[in-house]
Amino acid sequence: MDAVSTGTASASVADTSATATDAMPLAQRAAQLDRANPLAHTRDRFLIPEGTVYLDGNSLGALPAAVPRALDDAVRRQWGTNLISSWFGEGGWWEAPLRIGDRIGALLGAAPGQVVAGDSTSVQLFNTVMAAARLRPGRRVLLTDPGHFPTDAYLTDSAAGLLGLDVRKVPAPQAPAALAEYGDQVGVVSYPIVDYRTGELWDLPGLTRAAHAAGAVTLWDLCHGAGAMPIGLDASEVDFAVGCTYKYLSGGPGSPAYTYVAARHHGAVRHPMTGWHGHADPFAMQDSYTPAEGIARARIGCPPVLSLLALEAALTAFDGVGLADLRAASLSLTGFFIECCDALLAGHGFEVDTPREPARRGSQVAVHHPEAPALTARLAERAVVCDKREPDILRFGFNALYNTHADALAAARTLRDLVAG
Amino acid sequence: MDAVSTGTASASVADTSATATDAMPLAQRAAQLDRANPLAHTRDRFLIPEGTVYLDGNSLGALPAAVPRALDDAVRRQWGTNLISSWFGEGGWWEAPLRIGDRIGALLGAAPGQVVAGDSTSVQLFNTVMAAARLRPGRRVLLTDPGHFPTDAYLTDSAAGLLGLDVRKVPAPQAPAALAEYGDQVGVVSYPIVDYRTGELWDLPGLTRAAHAAGAVTLWDLCHGAGAMPIGLDASEVDFAVGCTYKYLSGGPGSPAYTYVAARHHGAVRHPMTGWHGHADPFAMQDSYTPAEGIARARIGCPPVLSLLALEAALTAFDGVGLADLRAASLSLTGFFIECCDALLAGHGFEVDTPREPARRGSQVAVHHPEAPALTARLAERAVVCDKREPDILRFGFNALYNTHADALAAARTLRDLVAG
Repeated sequence: MDAVSTGTASASVADTSATATDAMPLAQRAAQLDRANPLAHTRDRFLIPEGTVYLDGNSLGALPAAVPRALDDAVRRQWGTNLISSWFGEGGWWEAPLRIGDRIGALLGAAPGQVVAGDSTSVQLFNTVMAAARLRPGRRVLLTDPGHFPTDAYLTDSAAGLLGLDVRKVPAPQAPAALAEYGDQVGVVSYPIVDYRTGELWDLPGLTRAAHAAGAVTLWDLCHGAGAMPIGLDASEVDFAVGCTYKYLSGGPGSPAYTYVAARHHGAVRHPMTGWHGHADPFAMQDSYTPAEGIARARIGCPPVLSLLALEAALTAFDGVGLADLRAASLSLTGFFIECCDALLAGHGFEVDTPREPARRGSQVAVHHPEAPALTARLAERAVVCDKREPDILRFGFNALYNTHADALAAARTLRDLVAG
Repeated sequence: MDAVSTGTASASVADTSATATDAMPLAQRAAQLDRANPLAHTRDRFLIPEGTVYLDGNSLGALPAAVPRALDDAVRRQWGTNLISSWFGEGGWWEAPLRIGDRIGALLGAAPGQVVAGDSTSVQLFNTVMAAARLRPGRRVLLTDPGHFPTDAYLTDSAAGLLGLDVRKVPAPQAPAALAEYGDQVGVVSYPIVDYRTGELWDLPGLTRAAHAAGAVTLWDLCHGAGAMPIGLDASEVDFAVGCTYKYLSGGPGSPAYTYVAARHHGAVRHPMTGWHGHADPFAMQDSYTPAEGIARARIGCPPVLSLLALEAALTAFDGVGLADLRAASLSLTGFFIECCDALLAGHGFEVDTPREPARRGSQVAVHHPEAPALTARLAERAVVCDKREPDILRFGFNALYNTHADALAAARTLRDLVAG
């Protein structure tokens, strides 16, 4: 699936293992790496079932310990007792999408006032891709990833149909060349930061520069990156971004998504979904729409407040966590898991699809095997939780806030037991 | 604001009071009516703060007693313990939008398989109005209400702009005449069931018939009607409907909205928001979008599961409640409140905007007064909670599942004390 990663595999394995710890047994290495992990203390911020090796946080993050109490307060006191008054004042429901947006923004490298939380990634993608295209009205080409997550592809196609745009699907590594060739026709460049199947990390700064050099704006889907690594939206001068919050941000099932609009676009951007929460004066109940100043114009309708407040509590799991530490811990986990796969699964029909170069890796490891769906189910029976993607990929997501190197080794060992047993 | 209701005011008051109970003091009448209320038992299904007269359930319904426990289970067991497995099998998260849609549908007079829950009313309106317009591609006029709730107006304007439609705003009572005149140009007829300011109930069956006679499809916003009265979507052959669930359905702050698509349109309807949850085979991760069979094609992206499960628990407050009883109890409450206003507020600058004819009334009473905003705040200080709409409307929402005639009398008395004191 990923020729480059397969091609560089043996070199990377040599890099990883050419150390003084080379001969150390894997269990001892796992223990050593876990002891040295500067984020070891954050695992206690999650309620993970005893004995479960949970490596599906790239699909649904584990439950942060702060959530149950916060949600109970939201339900019983804020809703039950304070009722409608919670929308303003101490309750702060009205401001929640902006307040939580700023907290997410801090994890994305976005200064305050550029991110708003709410709706689903699908809705945000649709609304944002159209807003982005409207900033480049003379350009009829929308450049996107043939391997983009399906909902992005479907909604991009639909939006492009409404706006009369031509969607061209070019893999991220080839996108700069496409922009060099016909970039003057391209309005929007829309890519995921990490490939959802292989876990490959794309070059967000480089592709953003190439898009800007061609005069296009960029839209990044951060679903598989946010909360797992520094992203640096402002530093890379990204124009737009969207993402979910239920993966590495652990906001809960279907927790609200977010959208980022760079401040320099706030004056000009026009979203098609002109919901009343984005109006300049929402309670004046005016007949026609005037967008609010700033990022508030990206609000749509009434957000799911209970899910939003659960997300807010979940984000406290990141308090005091440096993104560089988070990235280092994540790469240590995924790197060690690849090492375990190499050591324990060789000759059993597995192939690692994820790049072995750390700089090209997100926070999941994809391994393909013809029996992937059945193996995923059998792993779950042994309390090792990962997921599958058709037709033959097992995905192991590592959240550095709660996963351990011991988890990585346990998963590889269990997989080996299943195929060798 | 509503000439007709003002015009019929004195006659209606006479109708209401011309009974054997005429001379009975209001407090005695309130007690008698509360004793006779067949829904008196359902108040215990809500956790309402002691001493609060809560008449803002047309904005945010009170907390149903079933919610806290259900949500705690959703968080701790379904998410925390069962993790990703809750999407399918016993957890049932994947099916929740359809399962809860059916429960809502039962309250709307919709047979199963025509309602799906999720997203906000704003998103549902935008997605649905475009889907509706696409069913009538040759017709360029969209008929809607000049007094529609702002978000409906804004999103309709935006959708019409994308589709090149001409939006004409005609008050509901004049809409049949407009359809008789130029109905052959009209594709979509989009109205609220109840005016959000005055509480006037529009003629859904009649306007739907007029639209169909002209060859148009109808889209009804049920926000201010659902959960307060029988609506009979199937019986009236409505085509599309959307609505929120946080008013009379008491689903919680920002609880997910819903959309109804009549089964006869399922084969042809094409929503613009082609999110992956609406795909025929979502986990096949196909490159292009194929809509699911049935109402599932109206799904968009990942729904906010915690808010959705809170809503599901909230809807159990309707278990065993007949819609005819609900409507009768609601009309008794609003009728009695108008009677209290007439008796206690005369000469203090108030005017009732809500029609006095029961058949033309939703489940709120709007009263206008030049000091409405200040009065709303002062009522709240005395634990009488209603809300205001600019510039001068006080809205008193009555939810027959938990409000009492004693509440109605207390509100009118407190208002009288404020202006006469």
